[in-house]
Amino acid sequence: MKMLSGLSFVFSIDAAGTCLCGGVHASFWRINVRSTFPGSGVWLHLTPETQPDDCSLRRSASAAALLLHAAELRRQRRCGNTMLTRVKSAVVNFMGGVMAGGSGGDHPGGGGSDLPLKFPYSRPEFLGLSADEIECSADHIARPILILKETRRLPWATGYAEVINAGKSILNEDQACCEVLMVKKKPPGSSAPNRLNMTRRRSSLPNGEDLNLRDNLDGSEDLTFHYWALFDGHAGSGAAVVASRLLHHHIALHLQEVMEILCTPNLPPPTCLEEEPVNHLLTTTSNRALTRAASLRGAAGAPGSPNTPPTRFFTEKKVSHESLVIGAIENAFKDMDVQIEKDKASYDISGGCTALMVLFLQGNLYVGNAGDSRAIIIRAGEVIPVSAEFTPESERQRLQFLAYMQPHLLGNEFTHLEFPRRVQRKEVGKKMLYRDFTMSGWAYKTIEEDDLKFPLIYGEGKKARVLATIGVTRGLGDHNLKVHDSNIYIKPFLSCCPEVKVYPLSQWEHRADDVLVMGTDGLWDVLSNQEVSEAVTSFLANCDADDQHRYTMAAQDLIMRARGVLKDRGWRISNDRLGSGDDISVFIIPLIKDFPEISSHDWDSRPSVSIVVLLQRAVKDLNFLHP
Amino acid sequence: MKMLSGLSFVFSIDAAGTCLCGGVHASFWRINVRSTFPGSGVWLHLTPETQPDDCSLRRSASAAALLLHAAELRRQRRCGNTMLTRVKSAVVNFMGGVMAGGSGGDHPGGGGSDLPLKFPYSRPEFLGLSADEIECSADHIARPILILKETRRLPWATGYAEVINAGKSILNEDQACCEVLMVKKKPPGSSAPNRLNMTRRRSSLPNGEDLNLRDNLDGSEDLTFHYWALFDGHAGSGAAVVASRLLHHHIALHLQEVMEILCTPNLPPPTCLEEEPVNHLLTTTSNRALTRAASLRGAAGAPGSPNTPPTRFFTEKKVSHESLVIGAIENAFKDMDVQIEKDKASYDISGGCTALMVLFLQGNLYVGNAGDSRAIIIRAGEVIPVSAEFTPESERQRLQFLAYMQPHLLGNEFTHLEFPRRVQRKEVGKKMLYRDFTMSGWAYKTIEEDDLKFPLIYGEGKKARVLATIGVTRGLGDHNLKVHDSNIYIKPFLSCCPEVKVYPLSQWEHRADDVLVMGTDGLWDVLSNQEVSEAVTSFLANCDADDQHRYTMAAQDLIMRARGVLKDRGWRISNDRLGSGDDISVFIIPLIKDFPEISSHDWDSRPSVSIVVLLQRAVKDLNFLHP
Repeated sequence: MKMLSGLSFVFSIDAAGTCLCGGVHASFWRINVRSTFPGSGVWLHLTPETQPDDCSLRRSASAAALLLHAAELRRQRRCGNTMLTRVKSAVVNFMGGVMAGGSGGDHPGGGGSDLPLKFPYSRPEFLGLSADEIECSADHIARPILILKETRRLPWATGYAEVINAGKSILNEDQACCEVLMVKKKPPGSSAPNRLNMTRRRSSLPNGEDLNLRDNLDGSEDLTFHYWALFDGHAGSGAAVVASRLLHHHIALHLQEVMEILCTPNLPPPTCLEEEPVNHLLTTTSNRALTRAASLRGAAGAPGSPNTPPTRFFTEKKVSHESLVIGAIENAFKDMDVQIEKDKASYDISGGCTALMVLFLQGNLYVGNAGDSRAIIIRAGEVIPVSAEFTPESERQRLQFLAYMQPHLLGNEFTHLEFPRRVQRKEVGKKMLYRDFTMSGWAYKTIEEDDLKFPLIYGEGKKARVLATIGVTRGLGDHNLKVHDSNIYIKPFLSCCPEVKVYPLSQWEHRADDVLVMGTDGLWDVLSNQEVSEAVTSFLANCDADDQHRYTMAAQDLIMRARGVLKDRGWRISNDRLGSGDDISVFIIPLIKDFPEISSHDWDSRPSVSIVVLLQRAVKDLNFLHP
Repeated sequence: MKMLSGLSFVFSIDAAGTCLCGGVHASFWRINVRSTFPGSGVWLHLTPETQPDDCSLRRSASAAALLLHAAELRRQRRCGNTMLTRVKSAVVNFMGGVMAGGSGGDHPGGGGSDLPLKFPYSRPEFLGLSADEIECSADHIARPILILKETRRLPWATGYAEVINAGKSILNEDQACCEVLMVKKKPPGSSAPNRLNMTRRRSSLPNGEDLNLRDNLDGSEDLTFHYWALFDGHAGSGAAVVASRLLHHHIALHLQEVMEILCTPNLPPPTCLEEEPVNHLLTTTSNRALTRAASLRGAAGAPGSPNTPPTRFFTEKKVSHESLVIGAIENAFKDMDVQIEKDKASYDISGGCTALMVLFLQGNLYVGNAGDSRAIIIRAGEVIPVSAEFTPESERQRLQFLAYMQPHLLGNEFTHLEFPRRVQRKEVGKKMLYRDFTMSGWAYKTIEEDDLKFPLIYGEGKKARVLATIGVTRGLGDHNLKVHDSNIYIKPFLSCCPEVKVYPLSQWEHRADDVLVMGTDGLWDVLSNQEVSEAVTSFLANCDADDQHRYTMAAQDLIMRARGVLKDRGWRISNDRLGSGDDISVFIIPLIKDFPEISSHDWDSRPSVSIVVLLQRAVKDLNFLHP
């Protein structure tokens, strides 16, 4: 989460209540805090020691309030645990007010909305936490690392661990999901998912043979896929919760559209499906199912038709099965985003979220990423990046190009040009470094009045922001997000489209210690790919190879290395570096394919009815998108 | 060059004058030709064997005419050389008419314009060809490979070779340039290049020491850079000729703007230059030259000013010296393109061109590319790509995004969606594969009336086209290029901005056989990076290491491997593959830095006065851009 401007979360608080920013991330602010906690009144005095712009000034008020919350929690904790609930409640009330102004109407936990929540805040389903456990997990002082319970297993013995932030938001805004989904063939004639055509397969996990889905190669029955996803919320937890519950259903619906094609691997996807149009007047009563031969004839043109050229001269682009899966994932992300937008009319869905998902289907791993989470594969100790981050810096040229083409999106308050720092009025007429959407290098230009506007992209590294507001440029939600105290919407600059990369899992030999690591930015902000690789590799080498928990233990170890321990003034990791104050979530997925099968009893003890109920609700929710 | 649609240049012609397309590239056409050459009447009958769209039909008429020209030349050649000039003249007249319709007013050689040429058609200056030699070089039948004469040398003993196409255009539309330029400091107080501030340094080539420009490290005097460039023209040779004469001057002008900064490597570039505005009313008579200390003060803010924050809290993006050079190259390309556009009011500048340039400055190689030429480095036999191609396929999403944002650019005749083939009317209501700017994968959509429009991006590989017209998406010129028989301009979709990559030459040890290879697409269409690497490496290994001509011989060998030999029905290379029928140009630049110095006498025997005249003309030409 990199929502809030110009302020880090490493700080100290003295006896008089003066909160001093410190550490490598803090550079802008000196904050004087007078607190009468516990109670309803909190007085913040912000003294900028530099000359920040108004936007970052106002937005940082929210950040300061969050800092205060953490500091107070820590102080109360020293006085004993009895005060905790009371303090929390006061902070929630206070934060509701601050955040409502600071993030364009979003609010954490739904405290400021009259609408019901779409899904209640929770931790990932597979953790199986009680309400009490969920409350305890949000302890910003102890920051307990949550892992899978002994009684629970994830597919492929996937490891998982998470920890809450150091106080920047009341709730853990990361969410996670892990499922095995079985897509059923659409009933003949149906074009809408009005029946429950997919179920989560919990009763039997695939073994090595199953992973290749050989059963489906004859074009029959079901299509099974494995799915892991991380969502990193900002400006509220709502979007992340909704996406963690529904994105895989959107993917399943899109895969269902093409499952017959995917299950016939020997023929390329037909360019045109030879179905009659749904509203065709003369449609026959017998359902015309897609046959491969008919589809191919359609693609190549029917010989003999006067308007249709002979097959042999027809140039046609070849489309692979893999690219159909990629297209399904891409469109599922778009549908998920549209659904959040529409549901906001009826539900309280706060904020936005990044989304990183891994899907295993027919021998391939598909890694789809929209945001700044990251996935890497560690194979024989070597790091293979399988995702790329989307940030104001990595997407600068796309965003500047958009602003250049549609300047009204900048509301006459921003300029699409980038400068190394804010331009001052006295510099008009002088030459300053700049770059526009065509440039990766820098050059000098003579400063004009227009260049005094705030830059569309501003800041560096973790502090880089779009429109002085948001630090990540792809994801779901954020439909109401505006520049503070303005009518400038952020959403047009955000893309909900993932970049999807394919890793041909079944074409490689993997060892037991070869894994795919997925982590939210809280992990990667403090640990490099190489550090993560070395940590995981050495940890797994010291585990019993038959231990089903080794990947969860390794995930816990990673979180520990990224969070660090609380010392004096903050969280510290190795070499006395600062630990991550962000929410951190990690999946470690083993890539070996002949892992011992795990029985359903071990894996999930919940009654299966709850699963069906959830699914029916989800499909009902999705229906309006696929009428 | 990939300008013309749907037709290759591999063909045979029978005794009756029937010209049959053949070979792997041809699939659309059967062309019956009745020719009464030599004379003014040529009758073409095109029989489409498939159902091509109107656009490609009309455009292919031009291609067929070009084919005819080559076939006729070949036939005449068999009857003896005396007819050659007469045939050429007739073909030029004929082509003027065909091409004027086929490429939106462009015409080869200027035959159809009342305006004078900006520069006469020629071959690269450094070849030093006579008018007769230039005419002979355009022999589409023999396709002689041109190399540097024994009496001539290029900087760093660079090798060069080229060959004309097999008949697709009358002239060789590739151009090349190789220069050593010395940028002089701007005279104090001047902001326009109204004096000749750069000269081409021909009198002494740099040795290994000079290449690092150590003389300049104290901030004094000159900035020397080495420059190699290839330009691949289309729809006429005008833009390529102009760009080959002027682009390096634009680069020099932009480097001059920052040369004091570049020559002071110990300090980062100042964000703001502390010069007074040029039109300042109270400007002092003493020129305020840029001093580093003053600039840094300006960048950090002057302490004591009430509006200026203390230095220590000022966050400012660090800009490297390299990124200033990149910015200079980027803006030079833009200026070159603007100049072509403006000059078209006064001169006949036909068509457009790609541009690939390599610049050596202060220990770095900068490779800037706008188009589909390519540069690779071969180091110890290993291939290091240092450029990427810009084609309708590689830039599909950028172009689709632009069309989506600005649909009027499609003139109601094109759709921004991509389909694997043309959609037929009878398919409306059915589902067909598509993708839009958000997708790298494919999905099915229900075909609507609007999808019957021609796709913005259509075709695959070398046949991919933007707006059914052009096969390369970055370059210079093309300002008048329109979709045939329409008012839809292509230029808004074309970018003149290069991608610039930096190779830190001085940080690597290089051997005598380590080289940078630059080639137009004619080379890379038929030879892979690996094949080029193996050919060059094995060729150089068999040369005398002291032979100054070894790199030119290697370039000649590469052209030979790409062009092949004329057999039966066309040009053939190894394994009986088709050779390239395109123009091919190749630089081979050795990367070893201690190459023996070459005297000026060996290198260029032309009188130096001609150089000065050209430069003065060039600078005069550039002046209006930098008033």
